[in-house]
Amino acid sequence: MTSSDLYRNIKKKTSFLCVGLDTDFNKIPKFLLDKPYPVFEFNKHIIDATEDLAVAYKPNLAFYESLGAAGWMSLEMTINYVRENYPDIFLIADAKRGDIGNTSTLYANAFFRNLDFDAVTLSPYMGKDSIMPYMEFKNKWSVILGLTSNAGSRDFQQMETGDGKPLYEEVIRTAASWGTVDNTMFVIGATKADQLKSIRKIIPDHFLLVPGVGTQGGDLEEVFLNGYNNSCGMLINVSRSIIYADVTNRFEISARQKAIEYRDQMEVLMTKAGII
Amino acid sequence: MTSSDLYRNIKKKTSFLCVGLDTDFNKIPKFLLDKPYPVFEFNKHIIDATEDLAVAYKPNLAFYESLGAAGWMSLEMTINYVRENYPDIFLIADAKRGDIGNTSTLYANAFFRNLDFDAVTLSPYMGKDSIMPYMEFKNKWSVILGLTSNAGSRDFQQMETGDGKPLYEEVIRTAASWGTVDNTMFVIGATKADQLKSIRKIIPDHFLLVPGVGTQGGDLEEVFLNGYNNSCGMLINVSRSIIYADVTNRFEISARQKAIEYRDQMEVLMTKAGII
Repeated sequence: MTSSDLYRNIKKKTSFLCVGLDTDFNKIPKFLLDKPYPVFEFNKHIIDATEDLAVAYKPNLAFYESLGAAGWMSLEMTINYVRENYPDIFLIADAKRGDIGNTSTLYANAFFRNLDFDAVTLSPYMGKDSIMPYMEFKNKWSVILGLTSNAGSRDFQQMETGDGKPLYEEVIRTAASWGTVDNTMFVIGATKADQLKSIRKIIPDHFLLVPGVGTQGGDLEEVFLNGYNNSCGMLINVSRSIIYADVTNRFEISARQKAIEYRDQMEVLMTKAGII
Repeated sequence: MTSSDLYRNIKKKTSFLCVGLDTDFNKIPKFLLDKPYPVFEFNKHIIDATEDLAVAYKPNLAFYESLGAAGWMSLEMTINYVRENYPDIFLIADAKRGDIGNTSTLYANAFFRNLDFDAVTLSPYMGKDSIMPYMEFKNKWSVILGLTSNAGSRDFQQMETGDGKPLYEEVIRTAASWGTVDNTMFVIGATKADQLKSIRKIIPDHFLLVPGVGTQGGDLEEVFLNGYNNSCGMLINVSRSIIYADVTNRFEISARQKAIEYRDQMEVLMTKAGII
């Protein structure tokens, strides 16, 4: 999928919502626990209930790995289910991987070939040769950590470098030169809306993946106004406040309701901005 | 396992060798491919052939994840096999994870509880709250990326920060304050032997995990002389030049022979240094 394809899907759905499939085994409604793969069943219900309101889904790998081989099976089944039923969906593996070249190639194979994700989140600490193997896959995306939404982003990401700029700006500027706007995104936490403006000056045309709206407290309108571009240029990820909107048997109805609220707000913002 | 336990095992085996289980399905001898879990079978043979010569094993997760659920099964079986047969072995999950707090807790559970690893490698880019969940596990270790052996370490790790020091020094100094010498190690690439001396001034007492000896060209003696301390203070990881020393049916004999060479060289170095 190219950035134009992504923008076309955003316009079609009047939504730049990404639903985070941080599916916690302990929060799954009881009636699903009888199924052989409860995590997959939960995801399937959430996806069926929200697929017309979201352009992307983002399973966080930690939730699947913590269940061992059964977790991987649920992940594979989720990806296959989306691919078979909703081919326009953009699938992001939230894995935050970062390793040397030949090992990166293996991870890239795992996420792009075996699992057919469109994108994978990556940590930039090991530098260019840890990222390039992902970029060699055609129509696949590297989503590189820029400035994250957690308190610990102050420890190193916001540290001043030799030329007086924070490290995350150096990371974004440098990493943007490794690929194109059709294979590179950056993770920018929604709790850092004031820093989005300066990041947009460095990378005016790249898509941003923005977590932290909802439970983590980021404000959707503020993030949008500071970060959108003429092709929208952002995916807002919401996890818990959609998928755990309700933990009863009605969970998918509540999840859909919450997703509609986000979509409606996004539609208003994009209409006002004149980009849909 | 504490750092004293690790040093005791090093003295007993006159070795600070860590064998990297970067088990590539395509390099496994043909006769093992008939088994239901060839990767596990390969690991089992390598471990049985080298367990008296190595103090640690380090599976790189990419090799297992790239095989999907079957890969996870092989990983689980490998860890369980070591735990049942060689309880003194230190097991490192080379995962290079780094995510926000609640997600880190899930990864920590996956590696420390479900799989009973002793340690996991972690990327520091997201800061303190991405690492602390691992440190809450008693007798488990965080092995934090400091200065890696790949070319890309120049992109950010060696970047000058505001106070004139390279980023990796800031990372090591700061991250060392989060834990103790009994739950924190740092990854320092063997191709950076000249920088080891200055790192040792910052963290004289921590164990270092040193990859890059062997196929990647790092020199064992040079690394040791620049980096050892009174409790040895280092694990040298060797992967390919041991596990793929020979790809015929005799692979375990050649792997053992190669491990003996490393052990013998380590014994001489530690004897000369007066630490065994």
